[in-house]
Amino acid sequence: MELTLVGIGTGKPDHLTLQAVEAIRAADLLLIPEKGEGKQELADLRRRIVAGCVEDDGVRVLSFAMPKRDPAVPDYKTRVKLWHDAIAQAWLDALAPYPEARKIVLLVWGDPALFDSTLRVAERIRKACPLELKVVPGLTSLQVLAASHAIPLNRLAEPFLVTTGRHLREHGWPEGIDTLVVMLDGECSFTTLDPAGVSIWWGAYLGMEGEILDQGALSEAGPRIVEARAETRERRGWIMDIYLLRRETSSASAP
Amino acid sequence: MELTLVGIGTGKPDHLTLQAVEAIRAADLLLIPEKGEGKQELADLRRRIVAGCVEDDGVRVLSFAMPKRDPAVPDYKTRVKLWHDAIAQAWLDALAPYPEARKIVLLVWGDPALFDSTLRVAERIRKACPLELKVVPGLTSLQVLAASHAIPLNRLAEPFLVTTGRHLREHGWPEGIDTLVVMLDGECSFTTLDPAGVSIWWGAYLGMEGEILDQGALSEAGPRIVEARAETRERRGWIMDIYLLRRETSSASAP
Ligand SMILES: C[S@@+](CC[C@H](N)C(=O)[O-])C[C@H]1O[C@@H](n2cnc3c(N)ncnc32)[C@H](O)[C@@H]1O
Ligand SMILES: C[S@@+](CC[C@H](N)C(=O)[O-])C[C@H]1O[C@@H](n2cnc3c(N)ncnc32)[C@H](O)[C@@H]1O
Repeated sequence: MELTLVGIGTGKPDHLTLQAVEAIRAADLLLIPEKGEGKQELADLRRRIVAGCVEDDGVRVLSFAMPKRDPAVPDYKTRVKLWHDAIAQAWLDALAPYPEARKIVLLVWGDPALFDSTLRVAERIRKACPLELKVVPGLTSLQVLAASHAIPLNRLAEPFLVTTGRHLREHGWPEGIDTLVVMLDGECSFTTLDPAGVSIWWGAYLGMEGEILDQGALSEAGPRIVEARAETRERRGWIMDIYLLRRETSSASAP
Repeated sequence: MELTLVGIGTGKPDHLTLQAVEAIRAADLLLIPEKGEGKQELADLRRRIVAGCVEDDGVRVLSFAMPKRDPAVPDYKTRVKLWHDAIAQAWLDALAPYPEARKIVLLVWGDPALFDSTLRVAERIRKACPLELKVVPGLTSLQVLAASHAIPLNRLAEPFLVTTGRHLREHGWPEGIDTLVVMLDGECSFTTLDPAGVSIWWGAYLGMEGEILDQGALSEAGPRIVEARAETRERRGWIMDIYLLRRETSSASAP
């Protein structure tokens, strides 16, 4: 059995690479998770992406219900690991009726390597049944953010940190790094920072219907973003957003 | 005038997104730089990518010689900034004979947002003549590295730093971060680290003819990589490589 994780980008069907289209076309079985925030909207989007690649030629599309995390487990990482075990079991159950399927494809939001559990779940599957694991990379929300704002991720020859809202809240701005990209932040964690000398580039629903962008000095753009985020989240029922923070440094005069 | 920077991925023509193919097809004028290490090989690759998208339908492909950095300028960042000024002038010179061109496309290796000068050069052009700047994101070497090894970039809910060989040599391993991705490293800067508890995932010519991968404990894989890198670089005349370093931490037990 060959399991291919295919990164699909962040929602625009034309985010797909030619390699991803090819992998989807070659699949015997396509697994589509129904999960996360905006469940229905995102599952529909995945189905539309598949329909754009495959003319009804016998490819089987299987959607399966994603298990939920167990809120009774207090430790965050333990909770997530147990959840990954449960997802692995859900995959095995979904695949069980199709022992003849050789090429199985799983569509992954963005890129499978970036803050995504699919690779970790696949490792668990591999322990239960032998399989060849392949990854087809996809555009990440990081790149779509940078492209939408037409900005570089890094300052000239300088590093940048890709991090989470939780990490930023708990550890603050790390020493010696002038650029942070923050993902998985349900709480506008930038509000916990001293805004002096910090700029923000923010994007929500990137590449999707209703994309929103904002940008400016954190002191001014920050409060605007908090408000826009709450308002659209309320209206649409879910939100996915990401932002880049850049701090002035003595050495860096140009972007 | 509309200037679109199109990320083309790291060499496989099927790294292109559908959006990138569309942008290339829509171009009046395509600018192809002849530059960098492996000059001829990479310029040929770009030309092959264009040929794959555009059937000889009047799209003009312009290659232009890239200026060189001036080794007489001692400070690294100043040298690079002067070089960007010179590149901007080279673009303007190349475009001057085509005042009627409306849609100009520049192919950028990987993604334009990641350790690339094109956006900075485009900002300079924008000051000389009004233009609408667009960016089409492309797969980065970061993602192709992770996909080739089928590994996640981040540990579960943990951040990662994207950095350069120079930065790693000068500043060492930053506090509190367990994963580094190192680019632009001509000197195997991982040899300056204490290898205890560190693993490396390395890739050269990713997505291209002759891709090489290696991986393991830094203490064992490190010397192998130093040797393989020197040998293939010598043989092929140039190399592009990137690696991910992951350090054991007390808290992180699983990948
Ligand atoms: C579980 S992670 C998955 C990331 C994904 N694998 C990628 O490559 O972008 C989800 C986070 O990615 C970011 N994200 C994903 N899609 C997004 C989009 N269309 N717009 C804004 N942020 C997005 C948000 O920060 C969100 O909290
Ligand atoms: C000037 S930067 C450009 C990066 C590019 N914009 C991207 O998105 O990957 C060049 C560095 O990218 C990395 N790189 C680019 N292409 C590569 C490839 N095919 N294989 C390995 N490393 C590559 C190497 O670290 C190289 O030193």
